Amino acid sequence: MTETAFVVFTPSGKRGRFAHGTSVLDAARSIGVDLDSVCGGLGLCGRCQVEAGSGHFAKFGIESAPAHLSPPGEKEDRYANRRGLADGRRLGCSAQIQGDVVIDVPPESQVHKQVVRKRAEARDYTIDPAIRLHYVEVAEPDMHNPRSDFERLTDALGEQWSLDGLTADLHVLQGLQRALREGEWSATVAVHRAQRIVTVWPGFHERAYGAAFDIGSTTIACHLAEISSGSVAASAGRMNPQIRFGEDLMSRVSYVMMNPGGEAELTEAVRGAVNALIGEVAEQAGVARGDILNAAFVGNPIMHHLLLGIDPTELGGAPFALAASGGLTLQAAGIDLDINPGARIYVLPCIAGHVGADAAGVVLSEAPHRADETVLIVDVGTNAEIVLGNSERLLAASSPTGPAFEGAQIVAGQRAAPGAIERVRIDRDTLEARVKVIGCDLWSDEEGFWEATAATGVTGICGSGIIEALAEMYLAGILLADGTIAGAARARTERIAEEGRTFRYLLHPGEPAIAIHQNDVRAIQLAKAALMAGARLLMDRFEIARVDRIVLTGAFGSHIDPLYAMVLGMIPDCPLDKVSAAGNAAGTGALIALLDCAARAEIETVVRAIEKVETAVEPAFQRHFVDAMAIPHGTADYVHLPRAVTLPAAESAPAPAGRRRTGRRKR
Amino acid sequence: MTETAFVVFTPSGKRGRFAHGTSVLDAARSIGVDLDSVCGGLGLCGRCQVEAGSGHFAKFGIESAPAHLSPPGEKEDRYANRRGLADGRRLGCSAQIQGDVVIDVPPESQVHKQVVRKRAEARDYTIDPAIRLHYVEVAEPDMHNPRSDFERLTDALGEQWSLDGLTADLHVLQGLQRALREGEWSATVAVHRAQRIVTVWPGFHERAYGAAFDIGSTTIACHLAEISSGSVAASAGRMNPQIRFGEDLMSRVSYVMMNPGGEAELTEAVRGAVNALIGEVAEQAGVARGDILNAAFVGNPIMHHLLLGIDPTELGGAPFALAASGGLTLQAAGIDLDINPGARIYVLPCIAGHVGADAAGVVLSEAPHRADETVLIVDVGTNAEIVLGNSERLLAASSPTGPAFEGAQIVAGQRAAPGAIERVRIDRDTLEARVKVIGCDLWSDEEGFWEATAATGVTGICGSGIIEALAEMYLAGILLADGTIAGAARARTERIAEEGRTFRYLLHPGEPAIAIHQNDVRAIQLAKAALMAGARLLMDRFEIARVDRIVLTGAFGSHIDPLYAMVLGMIPDCPLDKVSAAGNAAGTGALIALLDCAARAEIETVVRAIEKVETAVEPAFQRHFVDAMAIPHGTADYVHLPRAVTLPAAESAPAPAGRRRTGRRKR
Repeated sequence: MTETAFVVFTPSGKRGRFAHGTSVLDAARSIGVDLDSVCGGLGLCGRCQVEAGSGHFAKFGIESAPAHLSPPGEKEDRYANRRGLADGRRLGCSAQIQGDVVIDVPPESQVHKQVVRKRAEARDYTIDPAIRLHYVEVAEPDMHNPRSDFERLTDALGEQWSLDGLTADLHVLQGLQRALREGEWSATVAVHRAQRIVTVWPGFHERAYGAAFDIGSTTIACHLAEISSGSVAASAGRMNPQIRFGEDLMSRVSYVMMNPGGEAELTEAVRGAVNALIGEVAEQAGVARGDILNAAFVGNPIMHHLLLGIDPTELGGAPFALAASGGLTLQAAGIDLDINPGARIYVLPCIAGHVGADAAGVVLSEAPHRADETVLIVDVGTNAEIVLGNSERLLAASSPTGPAFEGAQIVAGQRAAPGAIERVRIDRDTLEARVKVIGCDLWSDEEGFWEATAATGVTGICGSGIIEALAEMYLAGILLADGTIAGAARARTERIAEEGRTFRYLLHPGEPAIAIHQNDVRAIQLAKAALMAGARLLMDRFEIARVDRIVLTGAFGSHIDPLYAMVLGMIPDCPLDKVSAAGNAAGTGALIALLDCAARAEIETVVRAIEKVETAVEPAFQRHFVDAMAIPHGTADYVHLPRAVTLPAAESAPAPAGRRRTGRRKR
Repeated sequence: MTETAFVVFTPSGKRGRFAHGTSVLDAARSIGVDLDSVCGGLGLCGRCQVEAGSGHFAKFGIESAPAHLSPPGEKEDRYANRRGLADGRRLGCSAQIQGDVVIDVPPESQVHKQVVRKRAEARDYTIDPAIRLHYVEVAEPDMHNPRSDFERLTDALGEQWSLDGLTADLHVLQGLQRALREGEWSATVAVHRAQRIVTVWPGFHERAYGAAFDIGSTTIACHLAEISSGSVAASAGRMNPQIRFGEDLMSRVSYVMMNPGGEAELTEAVRGAVNALIGEVAEQAGVARGDILNAAFVGNPIMHHLLLGIDPTELGGAPFALAASGGLTLQAAGIDLDINPGARIYVLPCIAGHVGADAAGVVLSEAPHRADETVLIVDVGTNAEIVLGNSERLLAASSPTGPAFEGAQIVAGQRAAPGAIERVRIDRDTLEARVKVIGCDLWSDEEGFWEATAATGVTGICGSGIIEALAEMYLAGILLADGTIAGAARARTERIAEEGRTFRYLLHPGEPAIAIHQNDVRAIQLAKAALMAGARLLMDRFEIARVDRIVLTGAFGSHIDPLYAMVLGMIPDCPLDKVSAAGNAAGTGALIALLDCAARAEIETVVRAIEKVETAVEPAFQRHFVDAMAIPHGTADYVHLPRAVTLPAAESAPAPAGRRRTGRRKR
């Protein structure tokens, strides 16, 4: 009789009795333990690494010992010499069971690795890529059994990987002969959704990559990740070159309307930038373009359409009809991506005409649909996209905030770039201001500030800077609740000056002098009122007066200090410790969709269920908008911050998350 | 209570009781009667035409009358004015049931029309195209329910046509906005396999077409058919322009081997010819290229690979490995077809390295797998492809006949073209010959022959001509059983002349004089022995000494007189009335696969089950080959034609089927 041993796999706890001599990989597979392997047991990929436990495991009633596995064989020695093998680690395909043993499968050896995110409230996800690699050994051609190369390949995939009914792209058939012969009848096959062969490499090919994109109107961000481990190999961002056709979305739609064929120019521009970014991250990570097999995209509806080569004109006016909105799986070649010719792309669903795939990405990343608390998510940009709800019900809307938050319509406004004021503090007594600019860690009243900013100068004020400036002006009494710059305060400071019938406040002397003008305040009031009105409209629909939690996302949303946003009345009241910045949640959503197939199905289902609210046709929106113009706004539902709120000292001010800058000193 | 009536549909016999006022189309659909409709009941397409029976139908116990349907309404009048409506015909979508009635659905109103073929032994098939058209009315965009154009389209297809879970090509999404708005929220949608939207036309679009191709080494043939009726709208053929790279298959493979990138030139050439043919048939039929949505292809393995852009080099030598052999469904754009951008193609499966998709087409057309009798099918060309079997078992092989049957290797040989001798009779007493040439209906001894052939001249002898010449020479005693031209017969005619150590026979005096040389006989002996050896090898495997039926296909196979083929020992003995010519059965197979989806699945299953025999590695093939050299060959299994067989008089000779020629007189 064959001798057998009792084996328990951790962390799954799956267990079974196996004949001595069974390889750990075979044992694991036979009972459904999640143990990875690309090479199918040849000792090439090292993905099936395990560790044997040592000692008595009372829980399982086992006396386990590393010696209960066969000593390392030739295959393991070869692998260890070539790639290194940590102490205690064994290759599951080589180590054979020779006695009772507890075998631990470390996270990196699991096919469905769990990705745990840093922010406690962010959802974790599981690596489950759309495209997987499989190494196979293929039978040589035989005149007596004239199966084609492709049939022998699919037969091998059936036998060695239990993949059946596979079809292939034409380019795969065209390149198959060479791949199989170059690999001497071995090949690594990339299979999409366990259905379609998209690439065949000769011999053993270890890694494949994917790229996740957030196509913003202003910037495009990209992460390159290894698709089976989920590890991000490189990230990069660049300006959206469509800016030359118009700063904001509507001016780009106008360009298309005025210039026949303009949509093709805009499409070419955005695809060119995507390809350039791919080149950049590939070079950073030392990855060949041909090894990139998958890409996932989020973007607002207009970017979504232009990337896909769809005319965005319809999105420029009511009824804001999207051409297509569901999640889309397409060939990368269809949008001219210069990556592997068999690569596929996934485009996340759009929610509505103004609430795009970027908002879907935010939902996927922040997972309000899994929350018990009622969460308000605000993606602040030219349009604010707003999502409200919990696991029971989700609402979404967009609010026409306009470009003021991005520094447009502000006299000294500018984009967030070195030299732009991003932090402001105003002394409550002297009404003197001090500022911080992007690219320098010193406050303007600290020693060395002028020298440190000499290169860039202090060129203007960016979105988060203007929010702080206005909130500080309000807290210092320079700005009244109705948004008027208080001329009366002239008595206390020379920083306030008359300007026609209104006043301005000098934020930062210098060349140029940076001042806040009355019209700047009005522009921000309009923008923040729109944002708040959108949130209020959704809260009305949801029939709640307060939200449990607020998440600010997007480049601007992540840089605002939530306290100041609340002082200004941009967002509803909420305990400060329940307001968080999620960074580029849309981009994170794209990354999750890239790496986790189940997440694609999840977001498509969630988006279908979201109740879409069109602010433009809601009479209540106007009412909320008017109510929200004041600072803090006048709705009685809210608990307002007291005028004399004690702000943290500048040095210990909460550091807004997200923006990275070279040379920033540790605070 | 609602009044009801009893309705019987013929020919299906399906019946039911329906409320008065129910439309015939609705009634038919509700009980699964196969009644066509593209427009979904708007009275636009006229596909749902029916006829009401008149009188007592004892079988059904019904007193039926046309008056038991509502009088023709506005919809029918409009249709009749526009398109005409035959007497007694009603539109099923308009006519309402008002009393008991027998309703006949004529064949052209059935979705799954049966196509009955002329030859009794050929298989019928059912129209069931891969791509169907559906007219839909789509909801307009609505801000309060912001579904995208594509969602509203698929919702409409779900509601109006029960099509669910549809996806679409990217180009469909790109063109959708315009199509829906141009059609004022109505569109005709082409759906592939009830799964994927491949085209959307604005408004009502009535017809879609498909093209069936037989890609031969020498000629390419094309049929254009309307895919829902199956009616062939146009046919055309042209030379395969690859001929400039080499006359026969092997010289083209050599070209690829010798010229790097040569396969791309050959691929471009064949695709160019396919596109030119499409232009030709589309013009003939007055069809726009954009209305062609599907194409089906057959061809030998080398043509199959070159069409698909696959290097054919591997097919040039043992083990003759195909790159891909299964049935393939691909995008037409992938092989550069200039038809609708969403068009799909289907390529029939190849059987083995030498037995191509053309042989699969022959099998699909001739359906030996459905036969009770054991059928031998011979597709004669440079390689003869041979299929033997019945519904129990099928075998296939190819035999290296070489190009002699096509006139190569024959001193006066030429392709079948005007001026080539195609029929020969030799007087048994005088040993005088008379001939017929392609392009002229007169025998050479008839009055007016010389005038009638003055334009072309008598330029040579084609494949079918040489078969007849040799068989007649044999029957007249000029050719001995071992293939020697009998010098002894010189005593009886001056037509035989010495030529070195051998003799020649003058077939036709003139300029040039056409003679049969000893080496010509040897070349044909080799070719016919190869063909017979292949057939015998399969018969051995099948363990039969005789076949029940023989089908000759292919351009050459269809032109040979079966009697002479049997005299020469090209094919096994078989009652003459059991030998038939199937014309271009491969092309017919492509047409069937184009029009009938079920046939695609059928041929894929049949091809997988075929036992492939590689003649090159079968020792028995050599033996059969040597045995088959003689005329008639020396195997005792066969019943030989007596030397003194009485041939029919020339005037009443059986007319070989297939070749069409302008100006041929009726015999």
